[in-house]
Amino acid sequence: MKHMQLIRGNLCWSSGMDTIACMERGWLAVEDGVIEGVYRTLPERLAGCPTQDFGDALVLPGMTDLHVHAPQFAFRGLGMDMELLEWLNTYTFPEEAKYRDLAYAERAYSSFVTHLLHSTTTRAVVFATIHLPATELLMRKLDDAGLAAYVGKVNMNRSSPDYLRELSTNHALRDTERWILETKDAFRTVRPIITPRFIPSCTDDLMFGLARLREKYGLPVQSHLSENYSEIAWIRELCPKSKNYGDAYDQFGMFGGGYPCIMAHCVHSDEREQELIARNGVFVAHAPESNINLASGVAPVSRFLDNGLHVGLSTDVAGGSHESMLRAVMHAIQASKLRWRLYDQTVKPLSFERAFYLATMGGGAFFGQVGTFRPGYAFDAAVLDDSSLDHPQELSLRDRLERAVYLADDRNVTAKYVAGRRVL
Amino acid sequence: MKHMQLIRGNLCWSSGMDTIACMERGWLAVEDGVIEGVYRTLPERLAGCPTQDFGDALVLPGMTDLHVHAPQFAFRGLGMDMELLEWLNTYTFPEEAKYRDLAYAERAYSSFVTHLLHSTTTRAVVFATIHLPATELLMRKLDDAGLAAYVGKVNMNRSSPDYLRELSTNHALRDTERWILETKDAFRTVRPIITPRFIPSCTDDLMFGLARLREKYGLPVQSHLSENYSEIAWIRELCPKSKNYGDAYDQFGMFGGGYPCIMAHCVHSDEREQELIARNGVFVAHAPESNINLASGVAPVSRFLDNGLHVGLSTDVAGGSHESMLRAVMHAIQASKLRWRLYDQTVKPLSFERAFYLATMGGGAFFGQVGTFRPGYAFDAAVLDDSSLDHPQELSLRDRLERAVYLADDRNVTAKYVAGRRVL
Repeated sequence: MKHMQLIRGNLCWSSGMDTIACMERGWLAVEDGVIEGVYRTLPERLAGCPTQDFGDALVLPGMTDLHVHAPQFAFRGLGMDMELLEWLNTYTFPEEAKYRDLAYAERAYSSFVTHLLHSTTTRAVVFATIHLPATELLMRKLDDAGLAAYVGKVNMNRSSPDYLRELSTNHALRDTERWILETKDAFRTVRPIITPRFIPSCTDDLMFGLARLREKYGLPVQSHLSENYSEIAWIRELCPKSKNYGDAYDQFGMFGGGYPCIMAHCVHSDEREQELIARNGVFVAHAPESNINLASGVAPVSRFLDNGLHVGLSTDVAGGSHESMLRAVMHAIQASKLRWRLYDQTVKPLSFERAFYLATMGGGAFFGQVGTFRPGYAFDAAVLDDSSLDHPQELSLRDRLERAVYLADDRNVTAKYVAGRRVL
Repeated sequence: MKHMQLIRGNLCWSSGMDTIACMERGWLAVEDGVIEGVYRTLPERLAGCPTQDFGDALVLPGMTDLHVHAPQFAFRGLGMDMELLEWLNTYTFPEEAKYRDLAYAERAYSSFVTHLLHSTTTRAVVFATIHLPATELLMRKLDDAGLAAYVGKVNMNRSSPDYLRELSTNHALRDTERWILETKDAFRTVRPIITPRFIPSCTDDLMFGLARLREKYGLPVQSHLSENYSEIAWIRELCPKSKNYGDAYDQFGMFGGGYPCIMAHCVHSDEREQELIARNGVFVAHAPESNINLASGVAPVSRFLDNGLHVGLSTDVAGGSHESMLRAVMHAIQASKLRWRLYDQTVKPLSFERAFYLATMGGGAFFGQVGTFRPGYAFDAAVLDDSSLDHPQELSLRDRLERAVYLADDRNVTAKYVAGRRVL
């Protein structure tokens, strides 16, 4: 027996990477969590179906945060005075070590999940820490909140402090396999994802071992790529036989090709690395605020899109300060403008349309048919009541949507759906 | 009979441009609106004075928005897809023309002043429009709200559309003089400031006439300088005898020297222009978000500070999207990091300390002894209750202050004082 529901409101969605469609007081028909149709006028056959009317509010596709560190949420907005490698050692690793303590994890992850629930984010791809109990706690909390997520128990067995390092490669792999078995079918909307922190944190045998687990259980992979100059120089030392950083992952069997893979950042990916990303269908998680805050640089996102790369958007908390994907859209546009003005006029700034696409369809594609209002897509939506963002003149829906990116916050997010289920 | 009041809370203030002082549960003694002392322990002689205790909240110096366009508030967050000159013609001038209609101005300026009141801003230097009644309405509203401000009736008699242009130079000067007479002593905390929009909008005789009015009434001046490459090229055509854009203002007698003067932007001021700014004591209103959104570039602010220039911070709404000076601090730091990474490693990024200084002491200095907690300074303060910005670990006051810049909004601003008077 199919379940049909109707949603009514001011609908705005990406109809392609360069176009946003807007429909005033339109109807969305949702059948078993999947969009059946988008209608200006309700077809007669649907009359009488249960309807949720959001009045004058904006109804948008839910947003996908393609890369976020849950344990770093505790120190969001702090310690923005260093570049990546120093920042990891000074701020990040000491904080992540605390998640050995489940009581601390309980407090911190409750806060993270609550904030995420009240944002426009419906789906997220998440780094946890190396700790199993805390990682499973996080997965449970996300699932209880109804948010869709991939969550990774982090692997790191070198170049990190004793207090935040796997006891041995075998121990790391045993832990990871146990965690996979405990979590792969345990939740409704949350799944495990293989997560080497990045190559400097993982010995070669750990990387190869993770690749075997990935294949054995058919899991996706996430990691970091070409974020910072010093990091890239380090990779050249660690992997002298690789053509580039991406190729190093590829040689470990951890760079997509036949399975879903996300690489965060790709700020300094050269042409050959970009080609490999494209060829292997790797998703780029663009993290503009983090790349600004850690003075990493700005990825040439419009070029990525023109060349057919899969790109989504990321808050990368706590390199980024805020869980808000609206802010991430703002920062993506702003970073691209400064890249254009200060550095390289061959890559045009991101339009509002493209930045909105990244946040919705671009990252949503990692989850399948997700991220826009089109028949066959999962019904993920965020409802924005923008009435508090007062204005004296008439505004089009397109204008209201653009303003919301710059001005709206959690107060404006009044309802949210994940795969047809209302979670807020 | 002197009036003494005590304020208690977690005090944070700039003790110099590179240092922030923090005092847990300290006392501020305020006598007739001026800070008498800052105390860890209350001196006995002050016991019994009326006290306002803000508990665990942060008490900061109020912030000065050194350059903001009140009539552009209506379209904040919109139309971010153009550079300056096209943006003025497409979005700005049509909106500013609406302020001929006093009913529209009433709606729009009420919204602007309400938002400003709930921000951390205690003082502002404001562009209005060319229209007298609307400008006086804005001044009245700011004064009624208790905010300290300089407000400028804008002058523009060329290179702007017919619908937003002075009828003649004489008409502009007569209007401006009438407005000066009507407003210079009319308000408690609001004063007029001479405001040529920028050289391209004002004929030479208008500029000279404004300089005479400035001198006759002893008023300060504000305008725009070296924001955008096309604008600067235009100045070279319009003022072929000037050495640079700043020198052009100087030749009109509108570039400080013996009187207070603010120039917004100074993104592309070369070494000679910077020297003239320094020599004449001109205040630079740094507008980082606007300079990003309009793809203008990033001013070398740390160099300005090292060279002793007066610099304050500006939201420049609606080039900037938001009235929040906290956001302006964030954008100032972020813009300076990308300038360093992408363009010029000889100018170091702004530290948090320097960006906070710009927002408080830097811009406050335009109003005299304003912008920090030091005896003799006006007691301007914003109280931030950051308890909603939850965190699982202990945080220092310095850390709480930094996070507030990235995370706090109007909900966290729970009280505000201007010159000792509580306005929120």
